[in-house]
Amino acid sequence: MQPSYHDFISEPAKRMPRSDIREILRVVEKGNVISLAGGLPDPRVFPLEELEEISREVLLKHGDKALQYSPTRGIRLFREILAEYMGKRGIPVSDPDEIIVTVGSQQAIYLTALTLLNPGDIVVVESPGYLAALNVFKIVRAEMVGIPLDEDGMDTNILEDKLRSLSSQGRKPKLLYTVPTAQNPSGVTMSMERRKHLLELASQYDFLIVEDDPYSYFLYEPVDFKPLKQMDKEGRVIYLSTASKILAPGLRLGWAIGPREIIDYMELAKQNMDLHTPSLSQYIAGEAFRRGIIDKNIPRIVSLYKEKRDVMLKALEEYFPEGSKWVKPIGGFFTFVYLPRGVDTKKLLPEAVDRGVAYVPGRNFFPHGGGENTLRLNFSFPPAEKIEEGIRILGKLFKEKLA
Amino acid sequence: MQPSYHDFISEPAKRMPRSDIREILRVVEKGNVISLAGGLPDPRVFPLEELEEISREVLLKHGDKALQYSPTRGIRLFREILAEYMGKRGIPVSDPDEIIVTVGSQQAIYLTALTLLNPGDIVVVESPGYLAALNVFKIVRAEMVGIPLDEDGMDTNILEDKLRSLSSQGRKPKLLYTVPTAQNPSGVTMSMERRKHLLELASQYDFLIVEDDPYSYFLYEPVDFKPLKQMDKEGRVIYLSTASKILAPGLRLGWAIGPREIIDYMELAKQNMDLHTPSLSQYIAGEAFRRGIIDKNIPRIVSLYKEKRDVMLKALEEYFPEGSKWVKPIGGFFTFVYLPRGVDTKKLLPEAVDRGVAYVPGRNFFPHGGGENTLRLNFSFPPAEKIEEGIRILGKLFKEKLA
Repeated sequence: MQPSYHDFISEPAKRMPRSDIREILRVVEKGNVISLAGGLPDPRVFPLEELEEISREVLLKHGDKALQYSPTRGIRLFREILAEYMGKRGIPVSDPDEIIVTVGSQQAIYLTALTLLNPGDIVVVESPGYLAALNVFKIVRAEMVGIPLDEDGMDTNILEDKLRSLSSQGRKPKLLYTVPTAQNPSGVTMSMERRKHLLELASQYDFLIVEDDPYSYFLYEPVDFKPLKQMDKEGRVIYLSTASKILAPGLRLGWAIGPREIIDYMELAKQNMDLHTPSLSQYIAGEAFRRGIIDKNIPRIVSLYKEKRDVMLKALEEYFPEGSKWVKPIGGFFTFVYLPRGVDTKKLLPEAVDRGVAYVPGRNFFPHGGGENTLRLNFSFPPAEKIEEGIRILGKLFKEKLA
Repeated sequence: MQPSYHDFISEPAKRMPRSDIREILRVVEKGNVISLAGGLPDPRVFPLEELEEISREVLLKHGDKALQYSPTRGIRLFREILAEYMGKRGIPVSDPDEIIVTVGSQQAIYLTALTLLNPGDIVVVESPGYLAALNVFKIVRAEMVGIPLDEDGMDTNILEDKLRSLSSQGRKPKLLYTVPTAQNPSGVTMSMERRKHLLELASQYDFLIVEDDPYSYFLYEPVDFKPLKQMDKEGRVIYLSTASKILAPGLRLGWAIGPREIIDYMELAKQNMDLHTPSLSQYIAGEAFRRGIIDKNIPRIVSLYKEKRDVMLKALEEYFPEGSKWVKPIGGFFTFVYLPRGVDTKKLLPEAVDRGVAYVPGRNFFPHGGGENTLRLNFSFPPAEKIEEGIRILGKLFKEKLA
């Protein structure tokens, strides 16, 4: 007799966060819909010819290693190259063993949460915050405290109030997760003043900070900022980054930089999870860093995305209902729009898809609910003319609903 | 002030199984020691030139996809190729959605455990059993029940007794994990009779079976066996496999084939863990399957490993103490030796390394302790002359201790 599979599913699996819009977006990927929902790089930024040359050389010269098992923490040579590259970007790495190489930065988030958070531990997040991180914090059953953002990033005065009130109950967060530069989903960047304040608070209330930084490598405007990791005097910041946006996501390479003791535990967790990150990807990306292909690629990335961003911002001005608000993102892949009250973006998604455009409703990014009138829009992937067309269709839909 | 990192480590991380011999083996990898401890393929089996040609073509023709994000479950094309290849090997796949592509089969084990096991659930394992799987079952806090092996694999009569006794307490296992063909660490293969018996027991006592099969593709002797998955009439078997031994482990490709509902949950868990398996690895391996490179490679693999196996078996006969026992493995990478009582292989490891040879003490493979007099020996990686020399040195050491 066929077993009743559902009876075999574990409680942790049943609690796994599910996206109610995933099915609808899955349909979108197949059809003729303009998708402003994804978060994909434009494939035109992939340095194809260089990678083809590198992969040929890697296989011919180092094939015995690039195709072999390799250490859980990451290939030593790749971590040395990363340490040097990070150093040039102002992220101090005193030893390559402060780095663990992961299967994308998603795994770095997962390993950080697994290593540091017990069920019930408090983790501070941005509201709205990066969805895939919020989901991981749900999985480890942490208690999320969301702090609102404004144009200068996470409001550290509200954070301080919250820390004080938790402290009066004898509680404190263990971890604070932030994307301080070109935040996902909102596009905002934390001011230097707030960065300083945040580090002071981490010291005063004794918590660690996870700085997730996929985007600071390619900015569309001059911005005065330093990575939190660089400003960190006490060793409180775990820095996460990825090659997905500056090279290619299909290699699945991310990394975490942090105190050795914490990285040791992350390595232990990763060993049981997948043994190690693909060796071939590490060899290829290592060569791309070493040969300066990434640095050479960044101006192309900036000019391509900046143009698309500007198309989107112009279209938003032109077509979106009066009273809508968004930030001009200085980096990253997204804008986040606050529509006038009365529009429910989740309810409207099927109608939008019927009219040929998809987006991500914003409510999922808010850890404590709300955000019914918000949506996240991607400008990195679609062609410029599709961005313009998509925004026009959405603007018309939202205006009709508000009328 | 620098935080006290240890206070931040989560309880699950602190409980993570640690290998007490890992440090010693780490030293081995660097030095001049003959390592019979690892589990690496011989790099001479990597089809380097073919992979170089494939990777060039993949990047030039499909670079926009091979370098891009791809679905969590695995690239559809790769799953179709796998489904066809598995079909030819007698593993029925009625739909590619019954397959999830993982970062090595280690991740397939991890996802299976996460998806199916609650803390306290019973999982039946082989004793000795595959260490990396035992560790995963510890992490999810399952209760392990070890069933001894003999030359015909897991003793299903002992299993039946155990099931009956559990049943009388109102309990039953949820899962049974086995490497039925060329088992790791013991090298034994489950007889057809026992395979039938095992499936009957799974039906009678209503549990699922995880069949982990890295080795059946390249056997050194003719053996009469069918995969459990092929014999399974009720849909109780989840089949795991990997490209690590037949192609290259550095690509990190594994897969699980099972009931759609279970694979759906595994996909959900994987999404939060690392988003997806590297696209480039999937494109490269897909082409290697499609072009018949793996099938062409298998006779080379067989002849290379069979020769090394025979060198090891001959040396064991010649140099190991009287009263030692081992199985002649028909596949896989290992032999497992039972020395006469009185030798403690874990205590002797540092001395063996001093004399220039490393191995893995067998006790870690026994879920309920014991096995002090056992060791696992790898023959796939070291050159034939090193195997002979290593066994000679070990034989001398053990004989001295027994004298």
